[in-house]
Amino acid sequence: MLRLVLAFLAMAAPAVAQTDPLPSWNDSDAKTAILDFVAATADPASPSFVEPGDRIATFDNDGTLWSEQPLYFQFLYVLDKAKQLAAADPAWAATPVLKAAAAGDVHGVIAGGMEGLVELFDATGSGTPVEAFRDDAARWLATAKHPEKDRLLVDMIYQPMVELLEYLRASGYQTFIVSGGGIEFIRAFAEEEYGIPPPQVVGSEGELDFEMVDGAPQVMREKGVAFVDDGPGKPVGIARHIGQRPIFVAGNSDGDLEMLQWGTAGDGARMGIIVHHTDAAREWAYDRDSHIGRLDKALDLAPAEGWIVVDMARDWGAIWPDAPAQ
Amino acid sequence: MLRLVLAFLAMAAPAVAQTDPLPSWNDSDAKTAILDFVAATADPASPSFVEPGDRIATFDNDGTLWSEQPLYFQFLYVLDKAKQLAAADPAWAATPVLKAAAAGDVHGVIAGGMEGLVELFDATGSGTPVEAFRDDAARWLATAKHPEKDRLLVDMIYQPMVELLEYLRASGYQTFIVSGGGIEFIRAFAEEEYGIPPPQVVGSEGELDFEMVDGAPQVMREKGVAFVDDGPGKPVGIARHIGQRPIFVAGNSDGDLEMLQWGTAGDGARMGIIVHHTDAAREWAYDRDSHIGRLDKALDLAPAEGWIVVDMARDWGAIWPDAPAQ
Repeated sequence: MLRLVLAFLAMAAPAVAQTDPLPSWNDSDAKTAILDFVAATADPASPSFVEPGDRIATFDNDGTLWSEQPLYFQFLYVLDKAKQLAAADPAWAATPVLKAAAAGDVHGVIAGGMEGLVELFDATGSGTPVEAFRDDAARWLATAKHPEKDRLLVDMIYQPMVELLEYLRASGYQTFIVSGGGIEFIRAFAEEEYGIPPPQVVGSEGELDFEMVDGAPQVMREKGVAFVDDGPGKPVGIARHIGQRPIFVAGNSDGDLEMLQWGTAGDGARMGIIVHHTDAAREWAYDRDSHIGRLDKALDLAPAEGWIVVDMARDWGAIWPDAPAQ
Repeated sequence: MLRLVLAFLAMAAPAVAQTDPLPSWNDSDAKTAILDFVAATADPASPSFVEPGDRIATFDNDGTLWSEQPLYFQFLYVLDKAKQLAAADPAWAATPVLKAAAAGDVHGVIAGGMEGLVELFDATGSGTPVEAFRDDAARWLATAKHPEKDRLLVDMIYQPMVELLEYLRASGYQTFIVSGGGIEFIRAFAEEEYGIPPPQVVGSEGELDFEMVDGAPQVMREKGVAFVDDGPGKPVGIARHIGQRPIFVAGNSDGDLEMLQWGTAGDGARMGIIVHHTDAAREWAYDRDSHIGRLDKALDLAPAEGWIVVDMARDWGAIWPDAPAQ
């Protein structure tokens, strides 16, 4: 059965190759390198051929698959939740950090440091079953608009990267998200927007507990951080969740440095990609000095490591998908 | 493309249904219930139909997919490593627990309690890259024989359960292992023996760290336990790794109780299975009083919960696969 399906896929492959799988990418060295790499690793006649089960691709999310300015979009969700909760019960905003969050005062929240951020995430996202949390995030994302651009947040995914994800999957790759963002928040939209189902999302994790709630078994979100999937945490998260070293890694910041290093250091064909935000006209331009998505060390290391730096302004014909009328 | 493949699979489905997908299962209520459930959940015309992406099946490993007596097989591996390490360097066995392990004195190891067990696992399995550890376990499993039965350990997988895994996958299910055993040890053989690749293995986890080792980036196994995937930890492990509540759950002990409860409590069609070890002639017979794979509470709850109790002696025509000549 499987053999028949594989034969069918093999027959269909030439038809796929004849159309441009990356139409939103301008012709460039980056595009050529990606097309060549993916074709070679999927071609049994190529010296760079990689067995299908080893074609693992990992993608950072914020700034790599969708925009992240002026604040990580999950942070916009948390601020909105704080506002809602404080409106329903003024006593909810009992601490300086929660008060600042409810007022939309980002600087006030940041003044609370990492401890304040955890307090805010706990106050807005714990005490609920995992499934209810994800449903709530999905409902919010269905209408949440960007504070500056006239777009839904989910319409700020990068069209060229969505094409790349689809091209990789059509070439026998498994595509995973490996994000510093919350794993459940990403699962709320990754399947619909990127075609990446929940088991293929790796992210930062809060504490969870199994409990009987009103006689029903539930996995509940508890207070506290269980795992930070950022920087050196990304290779660790991959080892835990995927259990295989990726051969294709895409990121946009120094938080992706260790994932790029680990993924591109193995044997055989390997590719690392850095999305460089250079497009102030269509999106944002930032790198070494940005408070969000800071790209410094990884940019310096890219030439020697052979990582491809994608220049958004030059290499991408489109940034976001054509947004439907709202 | 995907649509074409799905159409192709749909056309092929009737051919699958005409042969018995579970030939090692005797005709029984259990077999009929399983066949009916899987067929109904995969049939778009059935009121019990479940979308392919939601057809998630989770299986315990020890005692559910392969044997676990007289000791979890991973424990045999750890004892053998201790013996090797002590033979190479007598100073290695510097504590009572390590000395007992090197001598194959199981009771001496158990006398050290949970702390002693962690010490033994740390001493035999930390300080090595995750990939090297898995390779070592795979090499050991290639020749490791059972202490009582004249069989390789990998030939003590349950043939009826391997057929069930394949039948579920042929019916559009994703099959996952959710085990109290070590995630990396299981990944060393699960793909070859069960057709379950590394990303679909959930298990107990040691601490990991990203490190540069002699200039090469590595994910290293560190000392200490990061996550215990047993009992209430199983639904938590599923929520973290899979991010979806399974609709089909199989286990054999009270360590699977919470996974059975959570999986079978959701909306729509659900099935829970308990493998009951009743076959002293062909395998082992044990339940409420066993030191390994104790089955007590879950057995009491099964009738009211509608979980199917598989009687190995009665329901299975074969236990293990025909073992190749060694």
